[in-house]
Amino acid sequence: MVTTMDFEKAWRSFERGRWSNDEVDVRDFIQRNYTPYEGDDCFLAPATEATKTLWKQVLALSEEERKRGGVYDADTEIVSRVNSHAAGYFDKTLEKIVGLQTDKPFKRALQPFGGIRMAEEALEMYGYHISPQVREVFTKYRKTHNDGVFDAYTPEMRLARHAHILTGLPDTYGRGRIVGDYRRVALYGVDYLIKKKQEDKALLCGEMTPDKILDREELSEQIKALGRLKEMAASYGFDISRPAETAQEAIQWLYFGYLAAVKDQNGAAMSIGRNSTFLDIYIQRDLDEGTLTEEAAQELIDHFVMKLRVVKFMRIREYNELFSGDPTWVTESIGGMGVDGRPLVTKNSFRILHTLFNLGPAPEPNLTVLWSRRLPKNFKTFCAQVSIATSAIQYESDDLMRPEMGDDYCIACCVSSMRVGKDMQFFGARANLAKCLLYAINGGKDELECDKAGNPLQVSPPYAPVTGDGPLSFEEVKAKYTEMMRWLAGLYVNTLNVIHYMHDKYCYEALEMALHDSEVRRFFATGIAGLSCAADSLSAIKYAKVYPVRNEKGIVTDFKIEGDYPKYGNNDDRADEIAVWLVKTFMNFIKSHTTYRESVPTMSILTITSNVVYGKKTGNTPDGRRAGEPLAPGANPMHGRDSHGALASLESVAKLPYDYARDGISNTFSVTPQSLGKE
Amino acid sequence: MVTTMDFEKAWRSFERGRWSNDEVDVRDFIQRNYTPYEGDDCFLAPATEATKTLWKQVLALSEEERKRGGVYDADTEIVSRVNSHAAGYFDKTLEKIVGLQTDKPFKRALQPFGGIRMAEEALEMYGYHISPQVREVFTKYRKTHNDGVFDAYTPEMRLARHAHILTGLPDTYGRGRIVGDYRRVALYGVDYLIKKKQEDKALLCGEMTPDKILDREELSEQIKALGRLKEMAASYGFDISRPAETAQEAIQWLYFGYLAAVKDQNGAAMSIGRNSTFLDIYIQRDLDEGTLTEEAAQELIDHFVMKLRVVKFMRIREYNELFSGDPTWVTESIGGMGVDGRPLVTKNSFRILHTLFNLGPAPEPNLTVLWSRRLPKNFKTFCAQVSIATSAIQYESDDLMRPEMGDDYCIACCVSSMRVGKDMQFFGARANLAKCLLYAINGGKDELECDKAGNPLQVSPPYAPVTGDGPLSFEEVKAKYTEMMRWLAGLYVNTLNVIHYMHDKYCYEALEMALHDSEVRRFFATGIAGLSCAADSLSAIKYAKVYPVRNEKGIVTDFKIEGDYPKYGNNDDRADEIAVWLVKTFMNFIKSHTTYRESVPTMSILTITSNVVYGKKTGNTPDGRRAGEPLAPGANPMHGRDSHGALASLESVAKLPYDYARDGISNTFSVTPQSLGKE
Repeated sequence: MVTTMDFEKAWRSFERGRWSNDEVDVRDFIQRNYTPYEGDDCFLAPATEATKTLWKQVLALSEEERKRGGVYDADTEIVSRVNSHAAGYFDKTLEKIVGLQTDKPFKRALQPFGGIRMAEEALEMYGYHISPQVREVFTKYRKTHNDGVFDAYTPEMRLARHAHILTGLPDTYGRGRIVGDYRRVALYGVDYLIKKKQEDKALLCGEMTPDKILDREELSEQIKALGRLKEMAASYGFDISRPAETAQEAIQWLYFGYLAAVKDQNGAAMSIGRNSTFLDIYIQRDLDEGTLTEEAAQELIDHFVMKLRVVKFMRIREYNELFSGDPTWVTESIGGMGVDGRPLVTKNSFRILHTLFNLGPAPEPNLTVLWSRRLPKNFKTFCAQVSIATSAIQYESDDLMRPEMGDDYCIACCVSSMRVGKDMQFFGARANLAKCLLYAINGGKDELECDKAGNPLQVSPPYAPVTGDGPLSFEEVKAKYTEMMRWLAGLYVNTLNVIHYMHDKYCYEALEMALHDSEVRRFFATGIAGLSCAADSLSAIKYAKVYPVRNEKGIVTDFKIEGDYPKYGNNDDRADEIAVWLVKTFMNFIKSHTTYRESVPTMSILTITSNVVYGKKTGNTPDGRRAGEPLAPGANPMHGRDSHGALASLESVAKLPYDYARDGISNTFSVTPQSLGKE
Repeated sequence: MVTTMDFEKAWRSFERGRWSNDEVDVRDFIQRNYTPYEGDDCFLAPATEATKTLWKQVLALSEEERKRGGVYDADTEIVSRVNSHAAGYFDKTLEKIVGLQTDKPFKRALQPFGGIRMAEEALEMYGYHISPQVREVFTKYRKTHNDGVFDAYTPEMRLARHAHILTGLPDTYGRGRIVGDYRRVALYGVDYLIKKKQEDKALLCGEMTPDKILDREELSEQIKALGRLKEMAASYGFDISRPAETAQEAIQWLYFGYLAAVKDQNGAAMSIGRNSTFLDIYIQRDLDEGTLTEEAAQELIDHFVMKLRVVKFMRIREYNELFSGDPTWVTESIGGMGVDGRPLVTKNSFRILHTLFNLGPAPEPNLTVLWSRRLPKNFKTFCAQVSIATSAIQYESDDLMRPEMGDDYCIACCVSSMRVGKDMQFFGARANLAKCLLYAINGGKDELECDKAGNPLQVSPPYAPVTGDGPLSFEEVKAKYTEMMRWLAGLYVNTLNVIHYMHDKYCYEALEMALHDSEVRRFFATGIAGLSCAADSLSAIKYAKVYPVRNEKGIVTDFKIEGDYPKYGNNDDRADEIAVWLVKTFMNFIKSHTTYRESVPTMSILTITSNVVYGKKTGNTPDGRRAGEPLAPGANPMHGRDSHGALASLESVAKLPYDYARDGISNTFSVTPQSLGKE
């Protein structure tokens, strides 16, 4: 039984407020208790011997993992759940922060709830064989997310997916992008969180509609998941029913929350939130109380980050191809400004970036600085130093997001902003707008795929195609494109509705959602690919002469371009306005449909690596791009076409209306000294 | 591949019509092809030697089953599904109709989808132990109906259930009451049914709301279930992808459909529909073609009925107590009149009743004659003879139901009428109106149950109780009772909404629903218990003087009655009008709520045995009934109070408005020669 004494002890010297008054409010706790830091990086401590020893062990295992073809070891028997495995360690005597996804380092977990075939296929790829018992359970008795989706998909959805006009849909993998507020575990302890969930459940009464029944059932599942979280921590010897009392406990409690999430879910992006400033409060208290040194503090953060670096999932080859690697997107959001004008930078913002020196650079966790012009100068300088030395920091514009999201949001995956513990996202991958333009020209017949009879595959309803061999009419193509986008947006929303209904039904993120408010805001996160290619294509049709070239089946498979045309990415309104029109038109069509669980439709223009795969599935386009060539990433201009310098290129991107793309706009931008002019 | 030839052969000499023109329409087939029979029972044949031998074997096993305490054998390893077990036989060489629920006669199947604890408990009761693997699957990975329900129940629902004001809710057992149209298997073969379901699924397009996604998923599950049905039949050596060609095949195909249902579901009532006249068409054709004798025809029906007699489920003791036995409610509806005025009586209506002679009387299958004044005289005479000799026929008023339900409905369980393959029911057990009256008097505090502190259990919200020791005021009690019924009806609907949502989610009747139209009408079948007790109690308060007697906690636990009062069941409007008011008032409150899946609210006044258990949980009532004494069954007058003769009693029951109790009104009525007057 957790007592008032436990809270008094854990919360000693903290300024009380709304957060401590029978509420869950981590932001209020941070605002009242954190210590902004405007100094420089002199205080930072190097890696301890223990850290170095442990990190060598990680590197050795990584090396061996590569030798073994990418997977060191894999579980084929135990289905991963929050409390499924016995405690696992690298070296129990040295680790300050403990906890592994399975009972052994680098042993990947078996996670079949998203789909048993993918789980089995991923194992087979690396020479492992799933236990027949597990296969039987998940084929005979326990339906998976993937099975549910394909039971409900329409033939049109299957076609659009097959033809890759809808791409990367989370129907064969976990949707991810849900970030639990893992800080709650440390600040409140699990019993308090269970109590609050029970209170929330009691308030869900009245007419028992399916929505309300589902809400009540989900709260029950959340409460059970919190129970399992306690059991998991207990297996490591920790009682996390009570709140954390020290910095070490706070980091450990928080990490247990995150560990439980990655044991429960193999999500596409398992981001961790915005934790460093929160943790600084505990570290600062211990430093003030004389129970912690800076070196020990850095060691805690190093060990914490080390654990985040070894988060691994068993995934199929196609997944790794789509994402050009095997990312886990353990995004930690750092810094930013408070809405009261104080920077949210603390010494711990430095410490977590400092892990890139102490442990060396690494892509994970995805350390993301929430950038503001008003960040303390010393912190900006330090960020620049770390970036130059490691190329391992991601930056996002806090000034752009703060007005909408406040000052306790985080980044999920690479750009999606969500208020920690208050927002979640139904991830939606991408609609390929470049391909959609080709469909508009060909009346919805695919330019690459054929049906069994060898005829061009009709993917959309049979709309009227462009006829004749004369130059394409901009007005005609624009009108047809509008109708094709209307069709695609509707199909896209309905497909995502199916996916997320089934994800909730068969692969619900009970543990992660237990660390959210019960009344959560849900985003319905659509995305587009091929924006600049589509914009340039329309610009070419409008400002140059584009002649369709047909194959023997009458399908337009190539284009002859006469003359030049303005290109997106040169701050030329003629092209940039087309891009803006595309974004607005598609998003308006998205918004016209009913979204699952009254989620708020958003859109991203965000493909950082998958644009390569999407390009492979897109035929020749009217802008002169050849079939199979990559589309540009995110909102980037097409490669090499932004000929008017860096600033003009950035200005073009900046014209895209953020209101219509709230889930984020990415612009992959290489900066060389030359692009910035003379030093 | 089923070919046109298969259909030509199977449908030879049948008159074609809508049923054969790319539709599923068994009624149309029957109407066009059946041969009404107005003759007597002279044509009937006795049991064959094979029948006698097999029946002896059944009797011997039954005897051994009794010796073993009620269960002969039970499966503890294999989870029952349509195709889970190898073929099982009594004596393969003698059986004309084959198929058992498991691989051995009298071996009960393991059916945990409704609830693993109940499945385990039922086994333990009889000395069996569930396999640890099955327990693990159904606790760790596969949630059950029962788990889902209790995850979503509110504390108020649990209280009402605990206090037995809501009783017999299908939350620990399968709801049953769903009757597949098993005739479709014979008439069309399974491949045709799969094709029609695929067509139906293709038409479910447009906005993908959760409702539509669920519909599509269910159709996928139905199609898979039909595939398993074919596999099961194949294990017995039959290819039921094609339609049946002979009487033997028709009965066998139909029985396979039913067998698949009872392998898939352990429902409270697994009724079989309205099959005898349908089957007569096949038998008559074989007789006409000279390929079947009457003796062989009777043997087919005897063997079919024998199979229905040995349908068994593993159930917990409480279940058997509630239903005073271990009923399966394999109700077969016989006879009735067609809407065109022809009787639906055929020779096969006689044959199936004749099984009560050939095999001796038995409660299952529940042979139910749909009675009409206009049934052929010879059939009525035969029914009377069988009833006198066996007491094993149930009668229902076809004249009352036909105007609403047409002439192809059947009885599910004991009174619920449903159009075969077109209607289904969300079974709802009962609300105890007698106890509700006591709640009205005590402000929702239970008269029997106490909370942990020893205080009377507050079940409803704390309404104002009756105060003072003076005689109860009818107007005051009626007003309070109205409010208490308003509360109870709302709670009841919401509780059933939870139950049926979860049943669909975790224990969906895919096979049974595959044998329904895809667009099915759903009934939301509520029920009341204690009608006559409540009516008499109100009558006593109005027409006599009833003084409340309080216990030391202030709860009214008894009543002192001065004077006499009119009692329901004597054709006295003063009492009967109160009963009518009760039925209308409660049903109107039921109708005021949102019901799951837009189901049509109905009500039954129907407790045939469970009234005894309900009475045990109801305190002293103002009509003078003592605590614990049984309530009257269904709409019966209270025992011994119908002092004005049989006719007056029946007239009182007949006043109850059928419009408000469409799910059925039962009146258990013992007829002795004396009750009818002189011969």
